[in-house]
Amino acid sequence: MSPDETSGNRGTASPAASGDERLHGEAAIIAFLVPLTAGDAGAAGLADDCAVLTPEPGTELALTTDSLIEGVHFFPGEVPSFKALAVNVSDLLASGATPYRYLLNLALPEPPTTSFMRQFTAGLAAAQAEFGCCLVGGDTDRTPGPFTITITAIGKLPAGKAVRRSTARAGDLVVVTGTIGDAGLGLLLRRELSRSLATRLTEEHRSFLVARHQRPCPNVATAELVRRYASAAMDISDGLAKDLRRLARASGVGADVDMSRVPLSAAAASFCADAGVSRQRLITAGEDYELAMAVPPERWLALQSSAGGLGIAVTAIGTITQGSEVVWRDAEGRRLPLDSEGWDHF
Amino acid sequence: MSPDETSGNRGTASPAASGDERLHGEAAIIAFLVPLTAGDAGAAGLADDCAVLTPEPGTELALTTDSLIEGVHFFPGEVPSFKALAVNVSDLLASGATPYRYLLNLALPEPPTTSFMRQFTAGLAAAQAEFGCCLVGGDTDRTPGPFTITITAIGKLPAGKAVRRSTARAGDLVVVTGTIGDAGLGLLLRRELSRSLATRLTEEHRSFLVARHQRPCPNVATAELVRRYASAAMDISDGLAKDLRRLARASGVGADVDMSRVPLSAAAASFCADAGVSRQRLITAGEDYELAMAVPPERWLALQSSAGGLGIAVTAIGTITQGSEVVWRDAEGRRLPLDSEGWDHF
Repeated sequence: MSPDETSGNRGTASPAASGDERLHGEAAIIAFLVPLTAGDAGAAGLADDCAVLTPEPGTELALTTDSLIEGVHFFPGEVPSFKALAVNVSDLLASGATPYRYLLNLALPEPPTTSFMRQFTAGLAAAQAEFGCCLVGGDTDRTPGPFTITITAIGKLPAGKAVRRSTARAGDLVVVTGTIGDAGLGLLLRRELSRSLATRLTEEHRSFLVARHQRPCPNVATAELVRRYASAAMDISDGLAKDLRRLARASGVGADVDMSRVPLSAAAASFCADAGVSRQRLITAGEDYELAMAVPPERWLALQSSAGGLGIAVTAIGTITQGSEVVWRDAEGRRLPLDSEGWDHF
Repeated sequence: MSPDETSGNRGTASPAASGDERLHGEAAIIAFLVPLTAGDAGAAGLADDCAVLTPEPGTELALTTDSLIEGVHFFPGEVPSFKALAVNVSDLLASGATPYRYLLNLALPEPPTTSFMRQFTAGLAAAQAEFGCCLVGGDTDRTPGPFTITITAIGKLPAGKAVRRSTARAGDLVVVTGTIGDAGLGLLLRRELSRSLATRLTEEHRSFLVARHQRPCPNVATAELVRRYASAAMDISDGLAKDLRRLARASGVGADVDMSRVPLSAAAASFCADAGVSRQRLITAGEDYELAMAVPPERWLALQSSAGGLGIAVTAIGTITQGSEVVWRDAEGRRLPLDSEGWDHF
């Protein structure tokens, strides 16, 4: 259930469809991207090598960058431009930053078609509208390798308010947003290796899980929750178990977590009940793009109230501890050893 | 003489040498990169998904991004990390920005060896020392494609002082820094397709031209010259002819340029004299990483004086004109039609 198991018949590298005008020249590609700047002055119509940002006084910028590579992070033939921006936004939100601007590096194995560019830019336009940011610059290249989308996202936040993963304190609650494991199940379904596992899944549940993998949609309002309530935070991209251990290690603490309290969607709960997929599998699956936070207990009620007002689910699943071990337990308090933790490319 | 003619036996994708420890796990790769942050607080030891920048009041940021792809932009087996930062710095300088911070996306076809990582980070360390910036974040990925280095460079400049390519005015002088065409000749030499052309080249000249291709080294002091004297500027990466036409088009002007005044290095002049390579070929070769500027004539003497004090050669080669055509002439004023203009990936 790791991302690179999406690679099936790699090598066709086919953003291009047939019977469609093929674009020649970088200028023709850039012309499709210009509307995504929404007229931002710093983008200069993508007619310059540099974008210019003018942060307001008292503002800091958070920067993050992530690539999606065909055959590694997405299926051949997909055009996951929405997701490419979403996964970067997820990192910004975890630091408490609100999405602001982004850069795009587009590497294509062949000149794209107009229909490809329309699909590609429609995904980004939808993501920009959802997350409230715009394109300001980038780079396009022809590559002998796979179609690759690299986004560098820039967020803004009040000076001194960035939240790190390294500042959790013993006694804090371990809190997660949303539900865990949906995207991993969505990937299983998309790989179609698991039809027998999911025969009793409703179509609605199936669509929900697939969408959670294909089009993760972090809620930008979580940035403010992080800034106001979290002592430490990170987004969950490589699996809750692995990412929580990273947060604990960076903070020099441990954690004691109740696996039975890990929040599951109705679809995931149904999948687990019907197909025998374990919760352990869900916490080691990647691509949740939810947040894990350490929250001082005295702020927990206020966080619940604020999150409720924003329509964001928050669940306390355990406690940050002294020491250096992350201990997972079942509902009866028995330790649950993990077979593996999560995803690593190398 | 286009960049992707460097692709010879693509596919081996070999940053790794033999008889050397191979690194497993992203954490081991990141450990090699941490020293490049030079302890910058915003980089947080590369232990976070976001870097944080705190621009000084009254400061704007310029951002640019460029990828170098093995087999497209560099020869298989090369580790062009110095160049990867240099080509981005070149873009910053053209906007008048001083290098400040950068992000790195590293895509590797196989787990790297320690010797590869040492070579890779040594190149970046040398470039950081030369350009005065440090690493603050990034992303590492395994790829089924070629070794790819993507850098996003961030420069700073006084608010409102960014220089664009779109603001040249009729009557401005067309000025270039340094010498033109060296890197194109260096690439010819490196491809070893031109031994017969260059038999009378001295070893010193040969080394110079190869270095100009392999390790371009823009002078960071040009940022101040751009801010103080240029009405428009851009860096010359795809060939002087093409990039000058881009500057003219973006500004809604034309230019009248004397090809005989295009500054050549002693090595390039010797190459041209001995091997019959034309100046036209030099102004359509890429990767100069010098600057083309439009300079109001009343500022020309002051620019010459300032540039001289900084050890930067500046040469006026023509004039910005009304209209929309870039006209190249020989020393006698006769028009020289260009066969091709320069490099385009698509």
